[in-house]
Amino acid sequence: MASSVSGICSSSPSLRPKTPPSAAGRREVASVSFPSGARPPAGDRALPLSLSLARSVAREISAELGRADGAAKKEKCGLEKDSHSLWRRYVDWLYQHRELGLFLDVSRVGFTDEFVEEMEPRFQAAFKAMEELEKGAIANPDEGRMVGHYWLRRSELAPTRTLKAQIEGALDAVCNFAADVVSGKIKPPATSPVDRFTQILSVGIGGSALGPQFVAEALAPDNPPLKIRFIDNTDPAGIDHQIAQLGPELASTLVIVISKSGGTPETRNGLLEVQKAFREAGLEFAKQGVAITQENSLLDNTARIEGWLARFPMFDWVGGRTSEMSAVGLLPAALQGIDIREMLAGASLMDEATRTKVVKNNPAALLALCWYWASGGVGSKDMVILPYKDSLLLFSRYLQQLVMESIGKEFDLDGNRVNQGLTVYGNKGSTDQHAYIQQLREGVHNFFATFVEVLRDRPPGHDWELEPGVTCGDYLFGMLQGTRSALYANDRESITVTVEEVTPRSVGALIALYERAVGIYASIVNINAYHQPGVEAGKKAAAEVLALQKRVLSVLNEASCKEPVEPLTLEEVAERCHAPEEIEMIYKIIAHMAANDRAIIAEGSCGSPRSIKVFLGECNVDELYA
Amino acid sequence: MASSVSGICSSSPSLRPKTPPSAAGRREVASVSFPSGARPPAGDRALPLSLSLARSVAREISAELGRADGAAKKEKCGLEKDSHSLWRRYVDWLYQHRELGLFLDVSRVGFTDEFVEEMEPRFQAAFKAMEELEKGAIANPDEGRMVGHYWLRRSELAPTRTLKAQIEGALDAVCNFAADVVSGKIKPPATSPVDRFTQILSVGIGGSALGPQFVAEALAPDNPPLKIRFIDNTDPAGIDHQIAQLGPELASTLVIVISKSGGTPETRNGLLEVQKAFREAGLEFAKQGVAITQENSLLDNTARIEGWLARFPMFDWVGGRTSEMSAVGLLPAALQGIDIREMLAGASLMDEATRTKVVKNNPAALLALCWYWASGGVGSKDMVILPYKDSLLLFSRYLQQLVMESIGKEFDLDGNRVNQGLTVYGNKGSTDQHAYIQQLREGVHNFFATFVEVLRDRPPGHDWELEPGVTCGDYLFGMLQGTRSALYANDRESITVTVEEVTPRSVGALIALYERAVGIYASIVNINAYHQPGVEAGKKAAAEVLALQKRVLSVLNEASCKEPVEPLTLEEVAERCHAPEEIEMIYKIIAHMAANDRAIIAEGSCGSPRSIKVFLGECNVDELYA
Repeated sequence: MASSVSGICSSSPSLRPKTPPSAAGRREVASVSFPSGARPPAGDRALPLSLSLARSVAREISAELGRADGAAKKEKCGLEKDSHSLWRRYVDWLYQHRELGLFLDVSRVGFTDEFVEEMEPRFQAAFKAMEELEKGAIANPDEGRMVGHYWLRRSELAPTRTLKAQIEGALDAVCNFAADVVSGKIKPPATSPVDRFTQILSVGIGGSALGPQFVAEALAPDNPPLKIRFIDNTDPAGIDHQIAQLGPELASTLVIVISKSGGTPETRNGLLEVQKAFREAGLEFAKQGVAITQENSLLDNTARIEGWLARFPMFDWVGGRTSEMSAVGLLPAALQGIDIREMLAGASLMDEATRTKVVKNNPAALLALCWYWASGGVGSKDMVILPYKDSLLLFSRYLQQLVMESIGKEFDLDGNRVNQGLTVYGNKGSTDQHAYIQQLREGVHNFFATFVEVLRDRPPGHDWELEPGVTCGDYLFGMLQGTRSALYANDRESITVTVEEVTPRSVGALIALYERAVGIYASIVNINAYHQPGVEAGKKAAAEVLALQKRVLSVLNEASCKEPVEPLTLEEVAERCHAPEEIEMIYKIIAHMAANDRAIIAEGSCGSPRSIKVFLGECNVDELYA
Repeated sequence: MASSVSGICSSSPSLRPKTPPSAAGRREVASVSFPSGARPPAGDRALPLSLSLARSVAREISAELGRADGAAKKEKCGLEKDSHSLWRRYVDWLYQHRELGLFLDVSRVGFTDEFVEEMEPRFQAAFKAMEELEKGAIANPDEGRMVGHYWLRRSELAPTRTLKAQIEGALDAVCNFAADVVSGKIKPPATSPVDRFTQILSVGIGGSALGPQFVAEALAPDNPPLKIRFIDNTDPAGIDHQIAQLGPELASTLVIVISKSGGTPETRNGLLEVQKAFREAGLEFAKQGVAITQENSLLDNTARIEGWLARFPMFDWVGGRTSEMSAVGLLPAALQGIDIREMLAGASLMDEATRTKVVKNNPAALLALCWYWASGGVGSKDMVILPYKDSLLLFSRYLQQLVMESIGKEFDLDGNRVNQGLTVYGNKGSTDQHAYIQQLREGVHNFFATFVEVLRDRPPGHDWELEPGVTCGDYLFGMLQGTRSALYANDRESITVTVEEVTPRSVGALIALYERAVGIYASIVNINAYHQPGVEAGKKAAAEVLALQKRVLSVLNEASCKEPVEPLTLEEVAERCHAPEEIEMIYKIIAHMAANDRAIIAEGSCGSPRSIKVFLGECNVDELYA
């Protein structure tokens, strides 16, 4: 299917233009003369054509330049509106990857040639840094790790033979296991009413969930061999709901537990809850459990000792948010009947294309260039992602993590406080046009848009015309193009990424494209994309709350074991916990426990905390919580 | 269940504090003395306590004040960090609605008492404006309409007897129809293999989809009488997928088509696609079709003439984004077994509470106050919505529309260009902590957060301890509190909305709370919340693209009917369309048609547009497209 579309849109070999593919359609502009409709400003007449043309493209003043260095400096006074100049800019900058059937249009971002030139040294430094990374440089100084997600799709690039063998071994193991599960060779225990696995329950959070969720939504066939559900939080009601939806199919559910360390609390809790559900259903968890984790982690050891069905490796050189093409993403994909070797092939082709050191020919560099221009290099504008295709709904959520966790940093590589970031949000078009295009078009100018266009509307032979000459997909196309034009008319910049179809290959390519763009962008704004100290701080803060809760329980327990029971005020609890400064948190802990039948408020109400007196419903004489 | 939780957290009647409920816990601060730990700055010593205290709360300089008037002016130099002062602020500002079991904490937004005082006249004007609206004033000058979503939950407030009767009639009709469908009295045609409806397919977009999607995810029971699916776009592949998922159950699917005018293209296309699927399955659509639309609209007339199963009214005084408590939201909810009268009761109680003209006692006014403070009254910061409860995942998408479509406006009520807005995004906690809390905590300071907390973790009797004294829900609670503290420690402001449980009543209250907050906020920033000219512009732009496509088809058809066929360059097509300035759009139209087998590119490739020559695969001698 992909090849037929490609065949239609590309020319047949005999009709190909004489220029080699990589240069085709990219350089013609050099010989284009200035159109009469777009006269250069007087002061620009002596400049080379390319510069004066580009200068006229973007003259809007950005309110938030912020950067001290010259590269971010730009003067914008309204974007170019002349249609001939725009068409030339479109053709000049259009990036095409023939084999992937992928296009990138950056013509509606108003960067100037001058800006591109100024940024060139940074890009060359970024390319160099990426090259070092790909050779195995230590990129994560916090943890002394390499960063090597690109090796996953081309193992011969791995810096050692051992790594190469590990990558290939893991991929073969995933493929073989998935094939055996799908064929029914690996089956649930005899207690199951059906003799093959029918469902996947994925337990993981963040990088262990967002990629698999995005890929399942984008690529799973209508009737996959196994359907997938996710537990991606520590919400008891949410976990109960997922298990309830499985119902009796729990007996034929493959549970995949994904955690690098095994220590992520949400994932550990999800596992414990699922194991409890298995016990209550009289099922043996180990016979249906699969672990994806680092070798010798807590989770790995548990799974080995308990004899789980299978274990797959997570490598220490693959971060969560770039793990979609490790076992984390590949195993669930393969079990849903998605061609994972095609995903890897798409990513590998894109990796190759984004190694180009010519910015204009490197789609990841072009994205980074646009992000820098549009957000002033300091995240002054949000990136709104609008895929016009239902199956790509979760792309923006996936990118939200990939971009924000990578770019949102307090310090740069030199230790300066920079509070960097790039905010990502969006759902899908045209649906979002009815939700917030009103604001994007007319309201606060705090964003730039990325349209994701899919050329193929439905499989060949299934299309029909709702009205003469117009299909349902034409409307989707019209909505995208109409919105792009309407936003631009109001000086809102946009990028358009076009793929021919949503296939494993194009999804693999999109993932690799944005992974590389984030790496390059991080490099040009001089931050480390591969650590996330703030996440650890959040976990630590949560652990402190739970530690305080234990102290509160202990204090309340002691008072509740007295005869008669001694209800305590918040001040008294705080004092006995030796934490008077934590009185607000103690109040919240008590309100939460009271709402869950674990504490009793004897006097007062939660709305007036000062009035509260509290005790426990039962005295635990064992002082379990001490 | 709700009442037992309420009983736990509130005191028993005999233990109630002596003050009346509305005053309880809100006014104690007046007599609190200044704590030793938080000395007022020297210059503030002569000020009244409340002012000097408040001044110390927020001293950070916002980069984007922007407003010329004094009310938005604020000086922030880091938020108050003294725990005693914070606790006092927490208790002083905590809003509780006892009957709803709803709390609002605004203590971690750093507004000063001075600011509150300055804003007071605007709030009084806003309250007055809301009062006028509720009495039936014309609020939508574009369309000469009243705005009356609050009448839906308390019909006696409707300005005329006729309206009152219409509201009550519609509600009774929804309840009766839903009861008859659920009981099996209204059933699918005899051709269906099962004798009751099992599925709902909702066809609608924007305001006709987001509310029903949010409510289904939040409130549908594990095994609803009818399950629901949505077609909320004009994506052919997405529509095919939804229909494929129904499979043979299409025969027992109730199709609800929701469009005020019947003219929304996405909804019309969805209907046409579904009707085609019915025909191909040998089913009679009218026997399973339900219309929710304005009386005598195109859709209403079609449904009446074709004899659809049922029709329900949309009122011209209910906008799409506030239609969840009209038939639009109530019918699908009732069919899923959700207690819609409880939803209405919750909303009605909140409507009542938000009519209070004392800002501090009005939770909607408090939200509007925080939004104004945090975003400088000009949308300078994004609103990140983080519900810590899986079932509230879609709350932020719902609010995205409600807030952004209402607030994102080019002009204010006096005709000044203001480019207003308030950006909303978010998914759920703690999941999002693993996605972008890194950036929120350490990165670009371009947001304020709203935590939504649900006190009850799971139904009574189902909880258990994962480790001594700690449940799965305690972790969720700890993640929320830990994140709130960690953000605040880094000077990131947050609001916390707490409900005891996710019930029809609390969801109804949340919807009403935000509806009113948006209305008040729009009023204090002097814009019209009830129109959306930008949406119309987007539709118009799309229609222009489709009109151009018809011209392109006509031109290509003529050239393709020649012997031999005459392939055309883009320039030639543009010229013959008399639209040389539209050459880029024409290229895109052709690329899209080529990818869908409706045009053939004879020469060149899509990556080098100048090289393309194109013709149609077949000559349509009838000149259908002319």
